Amino acid sequence: MPVITVTLIEGYDAATRRNFAERLTDAARAAIGASLDGITVVINEVPAENYMRGRTGRMPGAPPPSPVSVVRDYLAAMERRDLEAAAAFLADGFTMTFPGGAVFSRPEELVAWARDRYRSVAKTYDGFDEADGAAGSVVYCFGSLHGEWPDGAAFEGIRFVDRFTVADGKITDQRVWNDLAEVRGGRR
Amino acid sequence: MPVITVTLIEGYDAATRRNFAERLTDAARAAIGASLDGITVVINEVPAENYMRGRTGRMPGAPPPSPVSVVRDYLAAMERRDLEAAAAFLADGFTMTFPGGAVFSRPEELVAWARDRYRSVAKTYDGFDEADGAAGSVVYCFGSLHGEWPDGAAFEGIRFVDRFTVADGKITDQRVWNDLAEVRGGRR
Amino acid sequence: MPVITVTLIEGYDAATRRNFAERLTDAARAAIGASLDGITVVINEVPAENYMRGRTGRMPGAPPPSPVSVVRDYLAAMERRDLEAAAAFLADGFTMTFPGGAVFSRPEELVAWARDRYRSVAKTYDGFDEADGAAGSVVYCFGSLHGEWPDGAAFEGIRFVDRFTVADGKITDQRVWNDLAEVRGGRR
Amino acid sequence: MPVITVTLIEGYDAATRRNFAERLTDAARAAIGASLDGITVVINEVPAENYMRGRTGRMPGAPPPSPVSVVRDYLAAMERRDLEAAAAFLADGFTMTFPGGAVFSRPEELVAWARDRYRSVAKTYDGFDEADGAAGSVVYCFGSLHGEWPDGAAFEGIRFVDRFTVADGKITDQRVWNDLAEVRGGRR
Amino acid sequence: MPVITVTLIEGYDAATRRNFAERLTDAARAAIGASLDGITVVINEVPAENYMRGRTGRMPGAPPPSPVSVVRDYLAAMERRDLEAAAAFLADGFTMTFPGGAVFSRPEELVAWARDRYRSVAKTYDGFDEADGAAGSVVYCFGSLHGEWPDGAAFEGIRFVDRFTVADGKITDQRVWNDLAEVRGGRR
Amino acid sequence: MPVITVTLIEGYDAATRRNFAERLTDAARAAIGASLDGITVVINEVPAENYMRGRTGRMPGAPPPSPVSVVRDYLAAMERRDLEAAAAFLADGFTMTFPGGAVFSRPEELVAWARDRYRSVAKTYDGFDEADGAAGSVVYCFGSLHGEWPDGAAFEGIRFVDRFTVADGKITDQRVWNDLAEVRGGRR
Repeated sequence: MPVITVTLIEGYDAATRRNFAERLTDAARAAIGASLDGITVVINEVPAENYMRGRTGRMPGAPPPSPVSVVRDYLAAMERRDLEAAAAFLADGFTMTFPGGAVFSRPEELVAWARDRYRSVAKTYDGFDEADGAAGSVVYCFGSLHGEWPDGAAFEGIRFVDRFTVADGKITDQRVWNDLAEVRGGRR
Repeated sequence: MPVITVTLIEGYDAATRRNFAERLTDAARAAIGASLDGITVVINEVPAENYMRGRTGRMPGAPPPSPVSVVRDYLAAMERRDLEAAAAFLADGFTMTFPGGAVFSRPEELVAWARDRYRSVAKTYDGFDEADGAAGSVVYCFGSLHGEWPDGAAFEGIRFVDRFTVADGKITDQRVWNDLAEVRGGRR
Repeated sequence: MPVITVTLIEGYDAATRRNFAERLTDAARAAIGASLDGITVVINEVPAENYMRGRTGRMPGAPPPSPVSVVRDYLAAMERRDLEAAAAFLADGFTMTFPGGAVFSRPEELVAWARDRYRSVAKTYDGFDEADGAAGSVVYCFGSLHGEWPDGAAFEGIRFVDRFTVADGKITDQRVWNDLAEVRGGRR
Repeated sequence: MPVITVTLIEGYDAATRRNFAERLTDAARAAIGASLDGITVVINEVPAENYMRGRTGRMPGAPPPSPVSVVRDYLAAMERRDLEAAAAFLADGFTMTFPGGAVFSRPEELVAWARDRYRSVAKTYDGFDEADGAAGSVVYCFGSLHGEWPDGAAFEGIRFVDRFTVADGKITDQRVWNDLAEVRGGRR
Repeated sequence: MPVITVTLIEGYDAATRRNFAERLTDAARAAIGASLDGITVVINEVPAENYMRGRTGRMPGAPPPSPVSVVRDYLAAMERRDLEAAAAFLADGFTMTFPGGAVFSRPEELVAWARDRYRSVAKTYDGFDEADGAAGSVVYCFGSLHGEWPDGAAFEGIRFVDRFTVADGKITDQRVWNDLAEVRGGRR
Repeated sequence: MPVITVTLIEGYDAATRRNFAERLTDAARAAIGASLDGITVVINEVPAENYMRGRTGRMPGAPPPSPVSVVRDYLAAMERRDLEAAAAFLADGFTMTFPGGAVFSRPEELVAWARDRYRSVAKTYDGFDEADGAAGSVVYCFGSLHGEWPDGAAFEGIRFVDRFTVADGKITDQRVWNDLAEVRGGRR
């Protein structure tokens, strides 16, 4: 218990359906604490012509890129400093907030600001978390930074976490926390 | 589209059912990008005697405290320095990781470590995010810290984020990031 | 075959549900020619709190007056010459078309026009038919007229049929055919 | 709301299924006044071997010709004076009733009676309405007549309405009203 | 797997519903070899007014006495030699067949025939089995006989099995096998 | 009434599904006394990838040989004295009980014991009955024996019944009753 039955228009691939079923299972566990063994999910596919809402047939939309994959692709573009590609993932009105409260709206601003913080930086990911809500999804990633200080000395293993708000396939907000200041302070 | 139907044993209160339906709606949006207007959730309750799995009747379990409420209660206990109450929320093997990579397993250790970092601290929350997965839920909270430095000077508006892993109603892991070092560095 | 299952929010009375089930049965017969014996209709009621569309709970609307009852009430008001009550059933833009192609938009116009056609008239109904469509319902009634000619002679048994278009509980169009001219012609 | 799910044996073509879904939608609107946007219809097809009633497998019947198409074909045969073809659409015990109350049971009788009413007549249709009920369907058509009076003069635009009762693919009753007498009276 | 959902008119008591769910579980195991743990049965009760077949409401029938209970009650009546009560469980055309092929249609005949076989006899039951089929149910009971031989000597532990056909709450056929002859042969 | 809907993973052949549906129909009749005409069974097949329990996909198991076919095959092997083949149908701990209470655990023991009871024996079956329960199925077969007495004289028409317990495709228990002693006694 419970049994969750989904009526879906045909056309979503098996991976999308599996992902959907897993999310429904997770929702059941979180909402009612059901034991995993008792959660059954059945996806019942019907051809588009067998589904009508408001006396109108409906077609399955293309499933959107997952919020996590949007964030991954954005971070990869930033890491290779392909600012144009990165900007394509950002919604109008996007802002990014960095340690100390610095706020930017375009990748270029971040790059300029970071210049006297580090010569280069890259991320090693320990995990991604996705929280889905009414207004979109929130994606966190966390792990460690490695790179070079402005003086060329290498650093690694510096803890970080990023929080992204994703709506309709675009990132509307990014917030960053990390231990760079903690470590930098220790260097002095 | 889709239509999600849940067969549930009677006995969950209306708030739990509403929460369940919202989570299922969010899962549908995140998984297949369905437009909100087309996502229908129906919860079909049956008396316990009308449900049988494995030729055995089943009773609805008590819904567990939500992962977010576990975290909130733990944080409240920590803030009022009720370490015994706080410890009751922690699973065996719990660890907490703080800026700079300090790792503790008991609230007392944190309190001792923090002594020369700040005289007091409290949190203002901007939000909680919950990500549900096969192994449990991850809860993030973020916002700003206010309190007093060891020298008695006040601080406020210092950004923080905490990440908690919650399984079976207990916290197994806490990770903390904040801008204390960033701000402290600026004070020097 | 077929089995038709309706998920409905609790709150519709038994007569409304029975009427709904009958209409669904009739739709199945007309659409696929199913034998009556094989058409099963099940109405599955769920409390309002167990139904959510677009992440929003829904309440059952009050079922509207049936199109046939709107027409009956309008005809009764006209027959007792309560023109104000009759007008309350008419939508903006209403027109009524009478034998010979006379078109009116208000009951008063009809009354004036009819004055030298008959002194009084009333209807005996043989039946009402309702055809439901995307844009609303069409109601027909047919039977016979009785009353008095302008010279006071009585008439009866004169065939008539009326066609009404009803949308959102209001009559938008009325068309009338009858044998008054046929009979009147025979009197000369 | 509501969600209407139909379990149907495979074998009905897409047009039949669409027509069925539309009729169910219309039934929901008429019965409970549901807003169109909230009416979902799902047709769930199962192979014939997966359906059993009374421990007996069932096969989908051929969907019957729609009542409207039966009437259209009958009217077309009458208009081209193919009385044999027309008669094939008529059930045993069929009667047709014409203005003034003339009743016939065979097309030939109508043709004979009409001879001194008009030399020829044809219909222009403004619409067809179908009302489905327990005992079969009622089809109305309405529009205008054009043709020639017995003296060879042309007429057109004369209002008419026909009411047909259709059961099991045959017409059991036809009733006709029109303004021929109204107009003829005006000619004298 | 599988999930078996039953739509049932309200009015059957909990024991009947439980028995129904158990039989469905057993049918699933026997038919497809499903592991017990994966067989889910849900009984969905609807008020009588929400169920319509053939455009006609249906009322739940009184569940019949179970075939096993019919047989038990008949056997108890026979054992206490209440032949009138026993006969009330027998359908028209009933026959009973005994070892050696003796066939009777009324309890009295059996009693007369048995007179020189044993002075008295009673049954100890090891079990009842019920096999349900299209034409009704077959009930077997087996165990051991004890009683007195015609010469007054006691016997016990003599194996027997009876097979009953039950349709519409009446026994139509009884067949009896036992080891009386085997044991009697050994006495000689 | 009732309507029984089964959700099944694709992969069972048509005969298995038909057999499943018949068993569900029989269960409904036996449990609630439903009239056959009102029992509808629908099997809804979904691809394996659309079914998940405990967040794990499931595959349809191979349907086991039916209990009746296990018994038939065992009896055929015994009749042709293929004791090795017969033994393959027997579970560990199997016992068989014969008239007079003789108990064996291996086919060879039966063969030895029967040697001075008859020279040969074969069965003509009047029917098989299968009773399904939580612990497995019970199969009965009954009919008549024919063969030769030890002295070579032929016999036929001797009534018998066998009861088999079948679990997981193996026979765990066999009990036999017949009229051999009854008839043999009559020969002396």
